[in-house]
Amino acid sequence: MNPAGPPLKLGRRTLISALPVLGAAAAALVPAIAAAQPPSAVLPSWNDGPAKQAILDFVRATTDQASLKFVPQAERIATFDQDGTLWVEHPMYTQVVYCLDRVPVVVKARPELADVEPFKIVLSGDRAAMAKFTMPDLEKILAATLTGMSVNDFEAAAKQWLAAAKDPRWKRPYTDLTYQPMQEVLQYLRASGYKTYIVTGGGQDFVRVYSEQVYGIPAEQVVGSAGGTKYGYDKAGKPVLTKEPKLLLNDDNSGKPEGIHLVIGRRPYAAFGNSIGDRQMLEYTTAGEGARLGMLVLHDDARREYAYGPAQGLPDTKVGTFTQALYDEAKKDGWTVISMKNDWRRIFAFD
Amino acid sequence: MNPAGPPLKLGRRTLISALPVLGAAAAALVPAIAAAQPPSAVLPSWNDGPAKQAILDFVRATTDQASLKFVPQAERIATFDQDGTLWVEHPMYTQVVYCLDRVPVVVKARPELADVEPFKIVLSGDRAAMAKFTMPDLEKILAATLTGMSVNDFEAAAKQWLAAAKDPRWKRPYTDLTYQPMQEVLQYLRASGYKTYIVTGGGQDFVRVYSEQVYGIPAEQVVGSAGGTKYGYDKAGKPVLTKEPKLLLNDDNSGKPEGIHLVIGRRPYAAFGNSIGDRQMLEYTTAGEGARLGMLVLHDDARREYAYGPAQGLPDTKVGTFTQALYDEAKKDGWTVISMKNDWRRIFAFD
Repeated sequence: MNPAGPPLKLGRRTLISALPVLGAAAAALVPAIAAAQPPSAVLPSWNDGPAKQAILDFVRATTDQASLKFVPQAERIATFDQDGTLWVEHPMYTQVVYCLDRVPVVVKARPELADVEPFKIVLSGDRAAMAKFTMPDLEKILAATLTGMSVNDFEAAAKQWLAAAKDPRWKRPYTDLTYQPMQEVLQYLRASGYKTYIVTGGGQDFVRVYSEQVYGIPAEQVVGSAGGTKYGYDKAGKPVLTKEPKLLLNDDNSGKPEGIHLVIGRRPYAAFGNSIGDRQMLEYTTAGEGARLGMLVLHDDARREYAYGPAQGLPDTKVGTFTQALYDEAKKDGWTVISMKNDWRRIFAFD
Repeated sequence: MNPAGPPLKLGRRTLISALPVLGAAAAALVPAIAAAQPPSAVLPSWNDGPAKQAILDFVRATTDQASLKFVPQAERIATFDQDGTLWVEHPMYTQVVYCLDRVPVVVKARPELADVEPFKIVLSGDRAAMAKFTMPDLEKILAATLTGMSVNDFEAAAKQWLAAAKDPRWKRPYTDLTYQPMQEVLQYLRASGYKTYIVTGGGQDFVRVYSEQVYGIPAEQVVGSAGGTKYGYDKAGKPVLTKEPKLLLNDDNSGKPEGIHLVIGRRPYAAFGNSIGDRQMLEYTTAGEGARLGMLVLHDDARREYAYGPAQGLPDTKVGTFTQALYDEAKKDGWTVISMKNDWRRIFAFD
C-alpha cells in the first residue's frame, strides 16, 4: 500500500522548525521505579511506583465524596494527546503515512499532479527526497489527500486504509499499536466518572474514524486539528459537507487549550501528553484549582517500543520531542513523567 | 439594568438583510389538532396530535430493538436550536439584551468610547435610534462586550447578569422563559438514550453559562457561534484564555451543519428549529438514512407567547423568521410544524 516503502524519518521537528537540541543527559530525573510486582486489579499493566500512584491518588482525591478536592461528575474531564501518548508515533505519524499512501489515488483522479512536486517525489518512492520535504511540501500533500471530498467519502477512504495498512515493524494494523497501560487509564478514569477526550495535533476527522473502536472514545470526544467544511448539495440535491483546505483549528501547542475551550468549554482535571506540543494543555489543566493531574509519557524503551528525546540523552528523532525545557517545566509544575521502561509492565495488548 | 429601557424590535432580519416578505396566509397548513385531552406520562404538556405523535413514532422506531430503523445508542444525537425553539426570542435575542446592558461597563473601562457611535446611542437610551443599528454597528457592540476579556471573566459577568436581569413582559429571569413542552422533549429523548445538543446561532460561550441549569445540557454539548481564543499568561504567570474578536464559526444557516460536523462529528437523527436559520440543519439531519425527525416551532400564540412569521399571515417581527419557502420545504421534506397554540397545552413551567 505504501508507495514510499518503509517509513521515513519525517515529523513535526523536521517540518516545522529546527528546535535547539538540548542534549544534556537527564536520566537521573527519571523516577527510580521498584522492580516488577504482581499485577493488581486497577491498572494491571502498570508497575507500582510514583506514576501509577499519581493516577490512583488523583482519582481518589477527586471522586471520594469525603475529599476536600471532590469534583462533581459533570466537571470530570480528562484529555489525552494521541500520537506518542495513546499509540505509537515513531518513526512517522500514522496520518502522514495515510496521506502519502493516498497520493497515487489522488493523482489518478488528477493526472496533472503526476509531474508536479511534491507529488512526483512521492510517486517515485524516493525516500531520501521525501525526508527533505518542507512544511509547504507537506501542506500540499495534506490538502490534496485530506480535502476536496465529502466528509463521508473521506471517512470511507480512511476506514478502508486502516483495515489494510500495517506498521512495518510489528506487521500489525496501526490500530493495534495502542499502549495497553494507557487503555487502562482511559477505562479507569471512565469507570471513575470521567469523560475522556482525545486532544490531538492530528486531524480531527481522521482520528474520529477509529476513536470509538480503538479507545472507546466517541467521535464527539475527539478534538483535533480541523479544517472547515462547506455545506452544499450533490447532483441529486442531497446535502453534502465538503472538506475545505482552510484550517480552523491548529490543535497543537497553544491550539490545544484553545481547542479544548472551543469544543469542550471546560478546563480538564487531568491531561496526558508526551511532547512540547502538549505543554500548554498541561499548563492550562494543572493551573486549575483543586487536584489536577499532568502526565507525560517518556519514550525510553528501545527494546519494547522506541527510545527518543534529547532531554534524556536519547536520540532526537524529530517526532514528539521531549525537550529539556519540557522536563524542567514538568518538575516545576509537578507533572509526572511516565517511564515506558520502568512504569509499564506491558506495552501492547498483544505483547 | 437595561440602559436601553424596554426591549427593541431588533433582530436578525433587521440587521442582516431584508428578506422578501412572503405574506400568503398559510393558516390552512397548520395541522388541525384535537381539543385538549388529559395529560399522559410522556410529554404531558403536549396535546395529542400529529406533532406529539411524530416524536413518539420517531423514538419508538429508533430505540425499539425489533425496529428495522433501530439506532445504536452511541449514534443517537438530537440537536436543538435555542432562540425561539427552546426559549423566547421575541422581541430581542437575550444575548443582544446582555450586550446592550454591558455597554456602560465597557465604556467605564474605556471612556474614549462614550463619544463614539454606536456606543453613544446605546448610552443615550434612544430606542428608535438603536432599532436602526446596522450589522456593523451591532458587530462593534458585540466585539466590545463579548471579547477582550478572559473566558473566566466573561463567564462571571454573564452569570451575574442572568441572575439579575428580567424579561419586561413576564418580569422573570430570562432563564425561566424556556418552553415546558420542549423541556419534556429534551428529557424524553435523553431517557431514550439520545444525547441532546444545542446548536444555536447565538454565542457558544454565552449559552454554555446556563445550558446545564436551564436545559440539563452540559457545556460540551452546546454548539454555537464561536470566536477564537488566545492562550497566554497573566501577570502572575498563570495561563489565561482571552476571547478574541475573530469569528471561527458563524453557527447559523449553512454554519449549523458545518458546526455540527466540527464539534459533534456525526449527523443528528433529530433536529428542532423555528426559522430559516435552521433550514440547513434540518435538511442535513433528515437527509440521513433510516428514521429521522425534523420539527419546526411555529409562533402562532399571541396570547400565551407571541405570534409572528409572514408565512402564516402573522406579523413579520424581524426575529426568527418562518418564511413561506421554509413552510414549503417542511411539507416537501416531511418536517413537522409544531403549532404552539394547538400542540402545546402549556407554554412555561410557571404557567
